[in-house]
Amino acid sequence: MKAAIVTVGDEILIGQITDTNSGIIAKMLDKIGISIIEMISITDSKEHILKTLNNYQNKVDLVVITGGLGPTKDDITKKTIAEYFNDTLIYNESVLEHVTQLIENLFKKQITQLNKDQALVPSKATVLFNPVGTAPGMWLQKENTTFISLPGVPYEMKNILENEVIPKIVATYKRPFIHHKTLLTYGVGESVIAERIENWENALPINIKLAYLPSPGRVRLRLTAKGNNEQELVNAVNFQFEKLKPQLTDCLVGFEETETVEVVIGNLLKATNKTIAVAESCTGGKIASKITAVPGASQYFKGGIIPYETKTKNSILGIPNNIIKEHSVVSFEVAKNMALEVKKMFQSDYAIATTGNAGPTQNDSNASIGTVFIAIATPEKIDTHEFNFGKPREKVIERTVNKALELIFKEISKKV
Amino acid sequence: MKAAIVTVGDEILIGQITDTNSGIIAKMLDKIGISIIEMISITDSKEHILKTLNNYQNKVDLVVITGGLGPTKDDITKKTIAEYFNDTLIYNESVLEHVTQLIENLFKKQITQLNKDQALVPSKATVLFNPVGTAPGMWLQKENTTFISLPGVPYEMKNILENEVIPKIVATYKRPFIHHKTLLTYGVGESVIAERIENWENALPINIKLAYLPSPGRVRLRLTAKGNNEQELVNAVNFQFEKLKPQLTDCLVGFEETETVEVVIGNLLKATNKTIAVAESCTGGKIASKITAVPGASQYFKGGIIPYETKTKNSILGIPNNIIKEHSVVSFEVAKNMALEVKKMFQSDYAIATTGNAGPTQNDSNASIGTVFIAIATPEKIDTHEFNFGKPREKVIERTVNKALELIFKEISKKV
Repeated sequence: MKAAIVTVGDEILIGQITDTNSGIIAKMLDKIGISIIEMISITDSKEHILKTLNNYQNKVDLVVITGGLGPTKDDITKKTIAEYFNDTLIYNESVLEHVTQLIENLFKKQITQLNKDQALVPSKATVLFNPVGTAPGMWLQKENTTFISLPGVPYEMKNILENEVIPKIVATYKRPFIHHKTLLTYGVGESVIAERIENWENALPINIKLAYLPSPGRVRLRLTAKGNNEQELVNAVNFQFEKLKPQLTDCLVGFEETETVEVVIGNLLKATNKTIAVAESCTGGKIASKITAVPGASQYFKGGIIPYETKTKNSILGIPNNIIKEHSVVSFEVAKNMALEVKKMFQSDYAIATTGNAGPTQNDSNASIGTVFIAIATPEKIDTHEFNFGKPREKVIERTVNKALELIFKEISKKV
Repeated sequence: MKAAIVTVGDEILIGQITDTNSGIIAKMLDKIGISIIEMISITDSKEHILKTLNNYQNKVDLVVITGGLGPTKDDITKKTIAEYFNDTLIYNESVLEHVTQLIENLFKKQITQLNKDQALVPSKATVLFNPVGTAPGMWLQKENTTFISLPGVPYEMKNILENEVIPKIVATYKRPFIHHKTLLTYGVGESVIAERIENWENALPINIKLAYLPSPGRVRLRLTAKGNNEQELVNAVNFQFEKLKPQLTDCLVGFEETETVEVVIGNLLKATNKTIAVAESCTGGKIASKITAVPGASQYFKGGIIPYETKTKNSILGIPNNIIKEHSVVSFEVAKNMALEVKKMFQSDYAIATTGNAGPTQNDSNASIGTVFIAIATPEKIDTHEFNFGKPREKVIERTVNKALELIFKEISKKV
């Protein structure tokens, strides 16, 4: 079963907003066995919308369109869909009642004609109820293709998708299963992994596809299997990963989706009843924000200090000024002391500290741009590592965050 | 001048990653007067890539393709482009030298055949140097269309785009000007604004287009003008907004910059020679990491405290235990004191503090899940705001970060 996703909106095409809707829709359709063959973003123009709908007619089973359902003049998706279906717009009584209720009772405002017109829908459409907004979703069929139109506001779109669209697709269509599983590695490059696992990759069965998803310091390997028996797919993918594991013992962290490295670290800390704190200079809070994105982080994350300005490494963290002066603020000694001090301040078992020069300018240190020190304090010891992560700024920050999580993961996992 | 953006990668079509490249490319092309007519994401399949390139051939002036340039088997864009151009791949000496240098000298690893093959390019291509990665960009011409292929890793793509692609386009093509300006309103609904400004909207000249960009509690109005004389466009848009302003006195906040709010905040702080610090509980360092992602943040960002564990709000930030006990850790009083204390500790002019319950469990407070307090301290005063941001955890954190940045932006911009 094939689908296309169409996003309507000039604001996307000029780069004013990033289209996050398509990804959300893709993930949910993929889960129920629908293959997305294309995602396309187009302008708010009648001709463009008509041409696009016509393009997908009878080529895919499902077209999901978001955007252009607002009450203002630049919103033309609804009118254009009616035209595509040679249909007229009529007032839907239950939508009108819902819009009136929302505007008058909830927002305590007087209803306007533009509000009322939100209840206009093509006469051939099945209305998909939107409990959290005024624009309803619409479901229309033309020959072999189902067209689903949803509002562009992400939480409205998501609500209708979850509660109306997915159940209706599941009830209407027979679909195959698609199973993905992603393995997470840290510290070994994509090319090295690829050469190492070449024989395994070449021997993969035809219905299982491998993809490499590299990012600085981290490579994810995704297997995708498609078929009619879900359990068989799950077993086949697990079997392949079991065969692969012994070749990746030096870099394998676990499996993703259910387990990013932050989640794995959290689970290990909970299992060993230990806590952690961070002192982040060049990473500016990004390690902490990753750790605290995990539900239940308050069980093991004590907190952190971001001593960004050089003098706060003394005034807040208590690192002696002569150490900073003598070794420079980006140094082995400062990183080490940051980890020791923050561990003491927060009374944690583990601590991570980062100090580096992410660029683009040299600032308060004589370290070259890209130089980063990461210190990892454990209950027994402290290790400090020096790296050069190159340029630009965002890459230096990201590689530092990933490397720090990899290093602390390795330390904590020794104890389990 | 028209362009299309093509993103290649199965990981996008299954919703595993969100395509942020297209938005970045669109924004930069739009700035130099190029209209993006479509963005499309397609699978890693030869047929699909060939069909897509062929589709745009002679229909647009420019096709920018990202993704599929890695060293592994699933990366097929380069081979497919060579096929589309009836071309063969040859080793490019300067790319080979750069790759060798990167792998052996910087990463201190042994170069592999897969690494070396990154230097293979179609013989007809002009190579676009990639200083931060191994996959070069490529520029190829076929009849009336220029095809530009870039790596999918965002910072590599961005680097080549900025330093190679944009200058080359500017030198090669004559382009019109596109001017956008966006007005920001808060507190009045989209329909109400639309009805109020209807006469003004209907009287807009034909080369100026209005778009409504609504999001919860906020409506942005964007005017876009296209033409050959930049100054005339700027004047025409300003003239229209001046006519509009008196009709929006109750909700107008100002004009939105093309930059993100973090960049605008940074510019305002530099312009007024002021500094900022943060105390982040429920946002766990995410506000600081956004602020410090901006190059030059060390000029105005002093640092922050992440007092995640309840008792560290006392032990690190010095908030009296009786205040925490009496009002609960998620409270107006605690947020306010966090902002005051962190401002004092870091001797900053402004401070942001967040405390809330992001869920999924209740934890150390009796505040319901989704409850968040944000305090904004300025040189003169402190304001504390209460919100309920609902569920789930990631949405609560994200909305808190955005709201905090919006609130501090409003305060700082009052001073300029």
